[in-house]
Amino acid sequence: MGKEITSRLQDYAQWYNDLVIKSGLADYSAVRGCMVIKPYGYALWENMQATLDKMFKDTGHQNAYFPLFIPKSFLSREAAHVEGFAKECAVVTHYRLKSDPAGGGVIVDPEAALEEELIVRPTSETIIWNTYKNWIQSYRDLPILINQWANVVRWEMRTRLFLRTAEFLWQEGHTAHATAEEAMEEARRMLEVYTHFAESYMALPVIQGIKSPAERFAGAVETFCIEALMQDGKALQAGTSHFLGQNFAKAFDVQFLNKNNEQEYVWATSWGVSTRLIGALVMAHGDDDGLKLPPRLAPIQVVLIPVYKNDEQRAAIDARAREILQSLKQAGIRAQYDDADHVRPGWKYAEYELKGVPLRLSLGERELQQHQIEAVRRDTREKLSLPLDHVAEKVLRLLDDIQQQMFEQAKAYRDQHITPANSWEEFIHILDEQGGFVYAHWDGTEETEIRIKELSKATIRCIPLSPWPGDDGPGKCVLTGQPSARRVLFARAY
Amino acid sequence: MGKEITSRLQDYAQWYNDLVIKSGLADYSAVRGCMVIKPYGYALWENMQATLDKMFKDTGHQNAYFPLFIPKSFLSREAAHVEGFAKECAVVTHYRLKSDPAGGGVIVDPEAALEEELIVRPTSETIIWNTYKNWIQSYRDLPILINQWANVVRWEMRTRLFLRTAEFLWQEGHTAHATAEEAMEEARRMLEVYTHFAESYMALPVIQGIKSPAERFAGAVETFCIEALMQDGKALQAGTSHFLGQNFAKAFDVQFLNKNNEQEYVWATSWGVSTRLIGALVMAHGDDDGLKLPPRLAPIQVVLIPVYKNDEQRAAIDARAREILQSLKQAGIRAQYDDADHVRPGWKYAEYELKGVPLRLSLGERELQQHQIEAVRRDTREKLSLPLDHVAEKVLRLLDDIQQQMFEQAKAYRDQHITPANSWEEFIHILDEQGGFVYAHWDGTEETEIRIKELSKATIRCIPLSPWPGDDGPGKCVLTGQPSARRVLFARAY
Repeated sequence: MGKEITSRLQDYAQWYNDLVIKSGLADYSAVRGCMVIKPYGYALWENMQATLDKMFKDTGHQNAYFPLFIPKSFLSREAAHVEGFAKECAVVTHYRLKSDPAGGGVIVDPEAALEEELIVRPTSETIIWNTYKNWIQSYRDLPILINQWANVVRWEMRTRLFLRTAEFLWQEGHTAHATAEEAMEEARRMLEVYTHFAESYMALPVIQGIKSPAERFAGAVETFCIEALMQDGKALQAGTSHFLGQNFAKAFDVQFLNKNNEQEYVWATSWGVSTRLIGALVMAHGDDDGLKLPPRLAPIQVVLIPVYKNDEQRAAIDARAREILQSLKQAGIRAQYDDADHVRPGWKYAEYELKGVPLRLSLGERELQQHQIEAVRRDTREKLSLPLDHVAEKVLRLLDDIQQQMFEQAKAYRDQHITPANSWEEFIHILDEQGGFVYAHWDGTEETEIRIKELSKATIRCIPLSPWPGDDGPGKCVLTGQPSARRVLFARAY
Repeated sequence: MGKEITSRLQDYAQWYNDLVIKSGLADYSAVRGCMVIKPYGYALWENMQATLDKMFKDTGHQNAYFPLFIPKSFLSREAAHVEGFAKECAVVTHYRLKSDPAGGGVIVDPEAALEEELIVRPTSETIIWNTYKNWIQSYRDLPILINQWANVVRWEMRTRLFLRTAEFLWQEGHTAHATAEEAMEEARRMLEVYTHFAESYMALPVIQGIKSPAERFAGAVETFCIEALMQDGKALQAGTSHFLGQNFAKAFDVQFLNKNNEQEYVWATSWGVSTRLIGALVMAHGDDDGLKLPPRLAPIQVVLIPVYKNDEQRAAIDARAREILQSLKQAGIRAQYDDADHVRPGWKYAEYELKGVPLRLSLGERELQQHQIEAVRRDTREKLSLPLDHVAEKVLRLLDDIQQQMFEQAKAYRDQHITPANSWEEFIHILDEQGGFVYAHWDGTEETEIRIKELSKATIRCIPLSPWPGDDGPGKCVLTGQPSARRVLFARAY
């Protein structure tokens, strides 16, 4: 009964793939590194999009759309940017196919070569700043607060569904400001928006921090991030917000007349989250029976299943179930009634567990008699009997509680997995034995950062914005013994 | 005062471009044929998307997402399809850039050539049917009712903002069915959805019809379309819905076990509308002063402008205006208050006329005294005084009336521009002198269709689903004199 899922203990990576594919979130495609987001996965993404989009609009942003293609020469304009993105991109070189003279099929028409090759956008700073140049003359044209929902392509050699795919969906905010302070404020504001989204909607506790120079976005002056912890003890970067200084304004010559009537380069930010967050949801909450989706984002919050032994029972149960469904929907609950009769209730229970539906209700003859309904929480598997009076209110309270409990559980796990290390042996031991974040001193050099990565496969996830328990001010680097200003968070990461 | 707009009479094409660019809908980009959709244009698209998306979901469809790239060989699988799409596509041949050894900048890394080139999707039938193959085994897996919101690329040589761009945004529905009847019903259902959207939301009257074989979608058995008329007398295809028969199922070997336990090829439809509809909105309704947006889709339905002579007046007017704004918003009206004080009210009036805001309210000292507000309709320019009691209700009624009147006006124009022609001289005369649709007999051959296009630049827009005034059953072809089964609609078109 149900679909075979590899356990986390047996093979964590396979467990993840099983969950994603068998729950109907996504599928592999015929194109290397690209996935198909199936209706259930896309419905989840739509809920995430709608929530974030409202948050962006509430903070004054508007959506717009910029070209998919970037002229090759644009990438070279910002020195660090081209370093970071040129290595892995899809390049359009021709604009026509023709029939293969040697037989069936089509070939690239050699006469249709582009004068300048086009890059499928890996991120849109360059094409957007080239556009902003035409939109900005004076301080009156600022700020520009724009977000784009789009697909982007980064040619990854090793791909994993949602976590690392050649094409992915995301949003990218690109803002332009008259002062450094205002741009910095915007970068911090969006980090707060992402934090609120991760914690209150995804039930995913995150650590806010700053990236080390080596992990900084290619072209940024400062990269802020939120880092989350998965159940295998590996970290996952869940969102970034960049203060770009005047780097892109200088690269694309975007100046404005300030209030003192002087020409000045414009200040910039960019920030983004992607369908990768779906991978984070799966790995942070799922168990060996399937997904566990937080109620606020779950495409189906409640499934209602009728249980009957014969047609007579069925008619009465069905009638009552439809009333209940109606009252749940009227209360704004995303409820679904599954009255398919070619599979048994037990099969359905397993299926909706796999799909991570937060609450399952079932209505049988006994429940009908007793004027109640059976409820099973996906998070704790707790079974409850709910009286049918005001059932929608009770379900709403339960969903709130599930949302809260899922966050608390993930947070307890995360908090247990931030461990200070005071020697290199301890550092490696923690990584190998318990995983999670290691809170250790670092001498601040890129050389040491690279060496630590080579030796341990751990990277600096962030310099946390607020000190964590174990913080002890300045100290000595866990690898080199050189002076360190403060502890930073290391982890092996996705 | 205001921005210079070319008049329609002077240069219709330039008028169109002026409206699109100066109203802030879109802008040219640095990439040939690709445009930037600016926030105002994108907000309009978001309203169109939200409306259509709800209609799709109400008719049982779910959204999903398929890869941007299509392996080159997929295009060749369906013979007609490759004919139609291979000629104009962006081809990805490489996956890496590298530093130019000859100097600054980057070049395509010749060692990073793809084994098989990838096409940036011009439409997704092939990649989707290759995926459906894995999803469909038995009749229980059918129907599949999926829609995708996506960007697509068709390498057009002559491009125009919104109307014909290399990259555009659209939705594409792709459904799979167990029977031909069910697929045909779906294709007709979606044509009705598009018609309802065009007429009730865009205020754009359309003619439902069937495409002639030459104008059929590449790979379809039957293409249904809705055709609209622009103010220069040219037609514009506003949406298509295709009955694909078993063509793609055969090309990708998608069979299912039917209820009789027999293997059978799956039946298919596809249907789509695009950002081209924004171009249609501009050209169907705009005038020499700017856009006229139908209230149901307008990003700003009502703009409220304070008019004052001194600071004392200003304070009282501002306070009252904010109350009015509040009551409009509470009634669900997309209202905006423009209290900018560095431009005069007259400048604002012109600006919001250009932007096509359906209703402009202004509040001055006199209105304040008389407990009323001045309202000016964008469609008729009619000026009214609205008492401030229950002002939101009155505004809602006015918006409904504007929506209705815009449709009636466009319909009257369209109806006056469907003209029967009974001779070739008449045919040409009508096209040259008054434009619009010419309702004429055609002998049903592709040869004649092509000849008519060569001679007149007019194409068969559709064989209307219901006969139009002037229908006279069978007759003789307007060009060849050969027998004709019925009149069809010709026009010069976008």
